[in-house]
Amino acid sequence: MKVAKFGGSSVADASMIKKVAQIIMSDDDRKFIVVSAPGKRYSSDIKVTDLLVELGERFVNAQPVDEVQAKIVERFQTMIENLSLSESILDDIKETIDTVLHDDRLEDNRLDALKAMGEDSLAKILSAYLQSLGKKATYMNPRDAGIIVSDEPGSAQVLDESYELLAKLRNHDGIMIIPGFFGYTKDQKLTTFPRGGSDITGAIVAAGVKAKLYENFTDVDSVFCVNPTIVDNPKEIKELTYKEMRELSYAGFSVFHDEALIPAFKAKIPVCIKNTNNPEKEGTMIVSNREQGSTGTVVGIASDKGFLSLYVSKYLMNREIGFGKNLLQILVDEGISFEHAPSGIDDMSVIIREDELPLEKEQVVIERIKNELDVDMVAVERDLAMIMLVGEGMNSTYGVASRSTQAFANACVNIEMINQGSSEVSVMFGIKEEAMERAVQSLYEEFFES
Amino acid sequence: MKVAKFGGSSVADASMIKKVAQIIMSDDDRKFIVVSAPGKRYSSDIKVTDLLVELGERFVNAQPVDEVQAKIVERFQTMIENLSLSESILDDIKETIDTVLHDDRLEDNRLDALKAMGEDSLAKILSAYLQSLGKKATYMNPRDAGIIVSDEPGSAQVLDESYELLAKLRNHDGIMIIPGFFGYTKDQKLTTFPRGGSDITGAIVAAGVKAKLYENFTDVDSVFCVNPTIVDNPKEIKELTYKEMRELSYAGFSVFHDEALIPAFKAKIPVCIKNTNNPEKEGTMIVSNREQGSTGTVVGIASDKGFLSLYVSKYLMNREIGFGKNLLQILVDEGISFEHAPSGIDDMSVIIREDELPLEKEQVVIERIKNELDVDMVAVERDLAMIMLVGEGMNSTYGVASRSTQAFANACVNIEMINQGSSEVSVMFGIKEEAMERAVQSLYEEFFES
Repeated sequence: MKVAKFGGSSVADASMIKKVAQIIMSDDDRKFIVVSAPGKRYSSDIKVTDLLVELGERFVNAQPVDEVQAKIVERFQTMIENLSLSESILDDIKETIDTVLHDDRLEDNRLDALKAMGEDSLAKILSAYLQSLGKKATYMNPRDAGIIVSDEPGSAQVLDESYELLAKLRNHDGIMIIPGFFGYTKDQKLTTFPRGGSDITGAIVAAGVKAKLYENFTDVDSVFCVNPTIVDNPKEIKELTYKEMRELSYAGFSVFHDEALIPAFKAKIPVCIKNTNNPEKEGTMIVSNREQGSTGTVVGIASDKGFLSLYVSKYLMNREIGFGKNLLQILVDEGISFEHAPSGIDDMSVIIREDELPLEKEQVVIERIKNELDVDMVAVERDLAMIMLVGEGMNSTYGVASRSTQAFANACVNIEMINQGSSEVSVMFGIKEEAMERAVQSLYEEFFES
Repeated sequence: MKVAKFGGSSVADASMIKKVAQIIMSDDDRKFIVVSAPGKRYSSDIKVTDLLVELGERFVNAQPVDEVQAKIVERFQTMIENLSLSESILDDIKETIDTVLHDDRLEDNRLDALKAMGEDSLAKILSAYLQSLGKKATYMNPRDAGIIVSDEPGSAQVLDESYELLAKLRNHDGIMIIPGFFGYTKDQKLTTFPRGGSDITGAIVAAGVKAKLYENFTDVDSVFCVNPTIVDNPKEIKELTYKEMRELSYAGFSVFHDEALIPAFKAKIPVCIKNTNNPEKEGTMIVSNREQGSTGTVVGIASDKGFLSLYVSKYLMNREIGFGKNLLQILVDEGISFEHAPSGIDDMSVIIREDELPLEKEQVVIERIKNELDVDMVAVERDLAMIMLVGEGMNSTYGVASRSTQAFANACVNIEMINQGSSEVSVMFGIKEEAMERAVQSLYEEFFES
């Protein structure tokens, strides 16, 4: 049995929902369907979830809500009409939103409950539509499905007992349509996952029902091996391991947040990225292990800007037990998480994302390092980019290091930092931001065009 | 004015001492001479300092000492005879050693005092010899010279007040012969520096008298750019910066302990490595700054075995503020100093010298990491070698990274770790020990023969 998740663009309007229905019906294994809220129909369009957020904020600030509320209802009304479904579904949706808006018991979970109405309503529409096509389809509320979460509005974490409850659904007859993005706390409060949470719901359901495959339908044919805004029509990745996926998504590779897949990762359920508009395309498989042969090669190039290097030098540093620890301790005290810490004999650099160390905090940190560690020099270099080559077993292949460094040289890009040696799956290069595009292009040429 | 230090092999016997005298007299700027104890005359010979250590240990353990004592006296006697110096010098030496051996006030400093007799006696002999050649030369005991040290027998540290006292010697007339390797505590206890301490004395004197040059006479023409046991007749280094010297000496490059030069480094006094047997050779200069032009190139390749990598992996490690710090904290608690800590997304390796983490300690550390950091995996890989390319400004030169990694690939050596990005002066590679020689040879070809 398969779990199929359809993203916002896949359910933006009636015509998309028809495509989705076709996809579902074309494979009897697709028993569990998780849906997002309707996304944009055209670039200037507004996502239903954004409208719901606006609705909630206006309500909380006692501003008029009718106009926004009408817009939301209209989105669903058009869908329902174009799918020739009964009025009663719209009434149900309207009523639910109204209840959420005015139910006094909700208070601090009201915003979460409202935000979730997009997914919830769409699940109702899709199941009704499948029924209208003669399919046995059931809308299943996450509460009834057994998705129990922590009481952290807007950033809920799934609780382990959910999986046993979900497992019971395996025997359920027909197709189940489950709205993504939210679950219920033990005391029945609707609580949402972080944004993009429908991917999380899909992964949780896939893990719970022990699906043989988690299909993630989106609007791209597959995952590209490099950022397509940097390289034109880059090669598509047929197969990725979880670890490769995770390392890629670390640096600007955002098919979706890698955390979203964790439940599937842990249950070792393969994930397939597919395109709702092009379902016959095989897409990209994300698996726990790549079969031999294809290992040892570079599968992707990730790149991201906005890093800085905190450089500290102190004569005889490497004779000082605990220096590195003390330096990192200062960062921990200041709540700064660091990425890497390459060190020389008498110097150490800490690579940090710029948003972790805003300028005002920078002064505090520099002062503390000067005063507490008695260093000879401390300096911050901003505007750095990180480029990451990813591929299982890559680092145990002769020549990958030389080919990649040669690619930088060819592009006349000086390498500020090389970090290889821990992960067998990746090697990371730090360079100046302005050089990122040409460096990535040169690496792409070397590893994917030669 | 110059300070010239002569090592053990330079003063091993009378014929060497004659060479030393010639060198001193050939340059009127050589006003301050620091000497080691007589070293080996032939490979199976015993250094005088080793005889003195044996003498001390036998004495402490109430074993017969006459034979060893006789051997020591004989070494000096032969010298004195071959230099046709007066018997009185030998009597003075014999008497001093005897006093040190039996003076009850010495007790815990007796071993230090004995160990120092090699340098002390030789300084007396050399000054007497120079006098016999009609030179105005004075033996100067470190106490009278003003070398005041901390009370740490066998590993004394110089105290800052020494430099002011030494400065007074500038006006002294004639040549001063100062025995290396020891100083006196504030309460007049003779205390020795760590082994190789004559280099330290030389650097201290050079800094104190503000010499224009510190000449370090040894038995090699100059510093080689690579370990000559790995590459036959490697190129000689004409000029090194302090920082390059220090980074080179980190990994198996041992002309002398880099710490020995610290006093000269700090006073920015250039150091020259010269050969007593070949004094007209210009040798290798160690300076604070290399003049432009010659920067940006690789000046040396250092290599050393005996490292291990402590590998830790934990899913979502990079979301965990403080993980790196906590890992290093465990090492600090166990008194283990680490060299480098390359980190991936979900894994981190700590490079440690094997002698820092013996097998029995390894288990303790691994258990603590498992229990306290709740990691997915922790493993230790031993038998690693570190290879370091050193050269000021090297890392800001295009292509150094690609040329070096290519050199590894040419030798079919897989790179386990690359550490670049902190020091501008070096890049470090971690590889398997068995591959070290061929990797170094390949790097030498690339950077010094092409």
